Amino acid sequence: MTIAGIYRTQKRNLKEIEQVMENLLKTNHTTLHQAAVDLLRAGGKRIRPILVMLSAEFGNPNHEDVKKAAVTLELIHMASLVHDDVVDNANLRRGKKTVKATWDNRVAMYTGDYIFAHSIEHMTGVHLPYAHQLVSKAIRDISLGEIEQIRHLYNVDQHLRHYLLRIKRKTALLIALSCQLGALTAGCSHDIVRKLYYFGYFIGMSYQIIDDILDFVGTEKQLGKPAGSDLKQGNITLPTLFALSIPDVRQRVVSCFESNNEQADWDGAIQLVKQSGGIEYAESINERYLAKALNILKSLPQNQVTENLRKIAKYLGKRKY
Amino acid sequence: MTIAGIYRTQKRNLKEIEQVMENLLKTNHTTLHQAAVDLLRAGGKRIRPILVMLSAEFGNPNHEDVKKAAVTLELIHMASLVHDDVVDNANLRRGKKTVKATWDNRVAMYTGDYIFAHSIEHMTGVHLPYAHQLVSKAIRDISLGEIEQIRHLYNVDQHLRHYLLRIKRKTALLIALSCQLGALTAGCSHDIVRKLYYFGYFIGMSYQIIDDILDFVGTEKQLGKPAGSDLKQGNITLPTLFALSIPDVRQRVVSCFESNNEQADWDGAIQLVKQSGGIEYAESINERYLAKALNILKSLPQNQVTENLRKIAKYLGKRKY
Repeated sequence: MTIAGIYRTQKRNLKEIEQVMENLLKTNHTTLHQAAVDLLRAGGKRIRPILVMLSAEFGNPNHEDVKKAAVTLELIHMASLVHDDVVDNANLRRGKKTVKATWDNRVAMYTGDYIFAHSIEHMTGVHLPYAHQLVSKAIRDISLGEIEQIRHLYNVDQHLRHYLLRIKRKTALLIALSCQLGALTAGCSHDIVRKLYYFGYFIGMSYQIIDDILDFVGTEKQLGKPAGSDLKQGNITLPTLFALSIPDVRQRVVSCFESNNEQADWDGAIQLVKQSGGIEYAESINERYLAKALNILKSLPQNQVTENLRKIAKYLGKRKY
Repeated sequence: MTIAGIYRTQKRNLKEIEQVMENLLKTNHTTLHQAAVDLLRAGGKRIRPILVMLSAEFGNPNHEDVKKAAVTLELIHMASLVHDDVVDNANLRRGKKTVKATWDNRVAMYTGDYIFAHSIEHMTGVHLPYAHQLVSKAIRDISLGEIEQIRHLYNVDQHLRHYLLRIKRKTALLIALSCQLGALTAGCSHDIVRKLYYFGYFIGMSYQIIDDILDFVGTEKQLGKPAGSDLKQGNITLPTLFALSIPDVRQRVVSCFESNNEQADWDGAIQLVKQSGGIEYAESINERYLAKALNILKSLPQNQVTENLRKIAKYLGKRKY
């Protein structure tokens, strides 16, 4: 089955999930309503719900808790993006103006709070105390990831482990949780739940590394925002981290960071990072996570579900935009 | 027993609750750590934990869930204050600089997110699904209250019911929940839980009405922020709402709102509201809520606990700062 085919099999589920989200976020408050509608329409790949649904197929995917988990996770993701755009001072996401850009930081703050609140409330419909613990821990970790990102902005002396911990918290944990909760709410065995958690964790790491590579090699049209945004904002991702080990490149990046204004030769620094071997280095780390993800799948029952997860992993880990 | 006496009987519990909060919020992130420590040190009356503990005395106050509820509610309150200061653009709270004033809106946003996340995570330690639903619904309502407050800023055509719904969401619900959860986690009967909820709701309404009165009649020293702050920020509270029914006063307030700058005669408008009878009107509404709260207590078992709650209600509903 192709990726399009997998999405087709989940079309009805995804539609239902979208509908639930729309109903939940309905409000007669004009600004809030518009912000929520814009966010829902902006869409995205809905990777978290897809992973919840696919993972659930190792058990009973029709259990009512499965979709509740899917809705909860997508809402948490959505809320965290809105707050993240405040932290990153980002005006564009997926080619659309962000909430903070359309309105302001205050609106973005309360819109995020409102969506977060709904996600937590929706989750209370799931009658598995352990699942609640997992979700609340994930929310805490995401908030820590956001904070860590700010903390390490412009820090050219950080280590690989700082980067990895950051993307784990920022991205990988919620994707891991999607697989884990899909299996858990569908009543899968402890062993399958645990393996799917790791599968999700590895593809989540891969997903963010690819994202960070694309920020350098993608076009503005593909990215929906200017290329090199991460570097310009002082967000040191894997390609830059590698490039900083080369004295000449390091000097140019530091000089940009220190001037930190429009006059800095950002394009020059971005080119240097791209030519430093940093992209290839990041790709090699990505390959390692992807291999780990595929490896885990080998230990699961071999059926159509495993096959679909394999396709999703390769699709996410090799995507070009 | 005096109020000081009641606080003394709860001293050990409060100390333990403070300690748990401090441990929970411990982090090696300097800014976040400092912001959290400042918030903890700023203290406040800890009314929510006190109400949880007192309400729990109708059942088994030593049940481990009781203190977990107390910590959760105080953390939710703390997080909401941090975000509220962003929304209100407030630089001072209880005479101390706010998080957003000490650092900036971004730090306030993520500090609030971090504390919220911890509150939810701590709550998962309570094994009562119904309690989780109550807490998540409260978080949603608080976020709606925050949004409603922005929506009705400078709106001179709002009704009493708008004001009452706003303070219900902003303040009363969390205080009602404190009493409710205290009783619920202590294993009280449904009837006692329900009555304590209403008791909390009525004193919560009273609490906020008094707060809104004090904003006019308190001194800067008592308030820890300039008097008349609400009006200057376009926040139409009960005294102003009454005053707006008097054409002359209405005109002066509207003219301040329309000029909305430093030159506006805010002091004049504040004086007019104070002389309009708005304070007395707000006091009469407060008395009604206070009477309802005291009335509910009559239907509860008459013992030292009821007596203490009566003292607390009177103390909060008649406080001068």
